[in-house]
Amino acid sequence: MSTDPFDELLAALRCLPGVGARSAQRMALQLLERDREGGRRLAQALDVAMRVIRRCRRCRNFTSDDECRICASERRSSRVLCIVESPGDVLAIEAATGFDGRYFVLLGRLSPLDGIGPEDLGLELLAQRLDKEGVAEIIIATNTTVEGEATAQYLREMAQARGIRTTRLAQGVPLGGELEHTDRSTLAHAFSSRLPLS
Amino acid sequence: MSTDPFDELLAALRCLPGVGARSAQRMALQLLERDREGGRRLAQALDVAMRVIRRCRRCRNFTSDDECRICASERRSSRVLCIVESPGDVLAIEAATGFDGRYFVLLGRLSPLDGIGPEDLGLELLAQRLDKEGVAEIIIATNTTVEGEATAQYLREMAQARGIRTTRLAQGVPLGGELEHTDRSTLAHAFSSRLPLS
Repeated sequence: MSTDPFDELLAALRCLPGVGARSAQRMALQLLERDREGGRRLAQALDVAMRVIRRCRRCRNFTSDDECRICASERRSSRVLCIVESPGDVLAIEAATGFDGRYFVLLGRLSPLDGIGPEDLGLELLAQRLDKEGVAEIIIATNTTVEGEATAQYLREMAQARGIRTTRLAQGVPLGGELEHTDRSTLAHAFSSRLPLS
Repeated sequence: MSTDPFDELLAALRCLPGVGARSAQRMALQLLERDREGGRRLAQALDVAMRVIRRCRRCRNFTSDDECRICASERRSSRVLCIVESPGDVLAIEAATGFDGRYFVLLGRLSPLDGIGPEDLGLELLAQRLDKEGVAEIIIATNTTVEGEATAQYLREMAQARGIRTTRLAQGVPLGGELEHTDRSTLAHAFSSRLPLS
């Protein structure tokens, strides 16, 4: 390596999202001046993670084993399957809810313009699971973007063909939000989808 | 290592300054999903940097050789020595000015309460350089904090005892700043240190 180790460290830190020239410099100096132990630990953790983390063969989430912890757990129910776009969505749902079913991670969304079709989202694997595992309900938790909605529609048809109950995350004004600051399309949707108070 | 590689990566990323739980998660997912090459490069750069980067034996700045690039360069003048608190200050001055002298990095500031005295700042090494290298001027560029000022005072006395000219970075209102938004002590200092316009 002919480049200077300090310059190379600055350049490499910038591959982290949200890290520009100034943050990279601050990080490098902090590690070198005050936390070499932390720097060594991070080098080691990155090295291990990049080598061993792969896809769970059942749900396509990240794992270092054949199956992820959720798929391998016997406490989780196979009757409800929550379908999300990315591993980050699994973490978010796990942190926010008491969901005790299993997941399927699409790792993307249908997007014909980008050449992303059903085969790229592992939908064949999903179909096998729906056929074999006695799934009674799928919860579609794709994003509420145009592509996420198209993907949801496709998933709904897959489930309906098998007589499986399909639900979608509720959409409307966020909790604790002020109407005044809610974006127009969310407000319009919440207004037209208003629910009766009993 | 018995912990999960993904959890360990999240924990290790948090040793970076300004990185909390959410950013660590975003960084880990970004590297795993889209930039494994970048992750491997960062692991390698960190590993090398933590092992090989040490102190320049002349100026105490970071380097992977015996002497840093600035000390080793024959184009830099030994007659002017700029004294700073940290390696980040050297980078800032190099980026902002055309300074062609050399540096001395204190790696701290005098702080009796924290038990940091002259011996922790390498002032003996500095004294040797002032005696041997024919320094004609020292530029004191410590921070404008109470401790930085105390350090500046100490350095001034060292230089005066050797008949060396001493300068300090100008202090006042920042360029492009509005008086209204300048903090009170900076404004008071700039007001009392006003200069005649010729």
